[in-house]
Amino acid sequence: MNVYEGPVQDVIDQLGRLPGIGPVSAQRIAFWLLDQPADDVHQLAEALTTLKQKVRWCSVCFNVSQDELCRICSDPRRDRSAICVVEESKDVAAIERTHEFKGLYHVLGGSLSPIEGRGPNELHLRELVNRLADQQVTEVILATNPNVKGDVTATYITRLLKDLPGVRVTRLASGLPVGGELEYADAVTLGRAFNGRQWMTS
Amino acid sequence: MNVYEGPVQDVIDQLGRLPGIGPVSAQRIAFWLLDQPADDVHQLAEALTTLKQKVRWCSVCFNVSQDELCRICSDPRRDRSAICVVEESKDVAAIERTHEFKGLYHVLGGSLSPIEGRGPNELHLRELVNRLADQQVTEVILATNPNVKGDVTATYITRLLKDLPGVRVTRLASGLPVGGELEYADAVTLGRAFNGRQWMTS
Repeated sequence: MNVYEGPVQDVIDQLGRLPGIGPVSAQRIAFWLLDQPADDVHQLAEALTTLKQKVRWCSVCFNVSQDELCRICSDPRRDRSAICVVEESKDVAAIERTHEFKGLYHVLGGSLSPIEGRGPNELHLRELVNRLADQQVTEVILATNPNVKGDVTATYITRLLKDLPGVRVTRLASGLPVGGELEYADAVTLGRAFNGRQWMTS
Repeated sequence: MNVYEGPVQDVIDQLGRLPGIGPVSAQRIAFWLLDQPADDVHQLAEALTTLKQKVRWCSVCFNVSQDELCRICSDPRRDRSAICVVEESKDVAAIERTHEFKGLYHVLGGSLSPIEGRGPNELHLRELVNRLADQQVTEVILATNPNVKGDVTATYITRLLKDLPGVRVTRLASGLPVGGELEYADAVTLGRAFNGRQWMTS
């Protein structure tokens, strides 16, 4: 129900369309914005406009980018022998935060999901195979999500790449989250932790 | 940590400043926006800009408004003998949704809170007293929040208005929320429900 006058209701309606923001949060944000300096609100509006104007996708790895090549692909310090395959740009950010990986990425643009109409042609799979053609890459790390769709996608890619000479395909370990407690782990995760158990003595 | 390139990180930073939106939600919204048509994102940016340009406060009741007078104050069908006093414009919207009240409002702009430095002079109290001067108003309904600050504010206003001739001051009932269960009611609410119990037989 539209109980507010024009501009306030417009902002509430627009904010309410964003994922994870319900009508109550939208209202709260709208009134919070009313209390902010006009410059701050202008900056938010500008950032949104710039987002759509300036952001593109890296022509090599399909990560978000400002230029033809993303920051990672154009960084000469990155290890060009390893490619980490992820579903979305968000996953690149998550992995970058770990500082564990110094190679390159390949963003698929989702996972295989026949139900949602996403088959192999909807993902950037051909481009991945093309990147492996020059034999510089020796490891492809599959970092799709540890769920059914991510697993199916990882299995598909494994089969796709299995005959490529000199390329090892690996998959991120599944297991108990660090800091968690065994008693609260779900059975599937605990089962994977068992299957993936590692030597403590050699 | 800034893991995204310019415009994406800018939007995440800006959204992350909004109340109730953490870095994870901000990131989720930013990538959702990247997938939306440019026009939709432009509309959101426009709505935000318009908000600060067009919204003002009603010169009579201090509700949000587009004009000198808000929609409610300028509506000739509203009952001018009753004024409902609320803390914020949001509360006006909440009461309007009930369709129970056809009078006018007065938005205080908060509640009395010495700790947060809000005394009587920080609220629109003088303006409330001025509105009662022409003796058209016969009832002032105090609808400040049912918490300590709202109660203190209601008590203060009751004392402020107690000598005005022909004005009855009332307060919204506190009690059990409709649809709730007695067993889950907190002791204070249950106590108020007892104190405010009403005759079923007369």
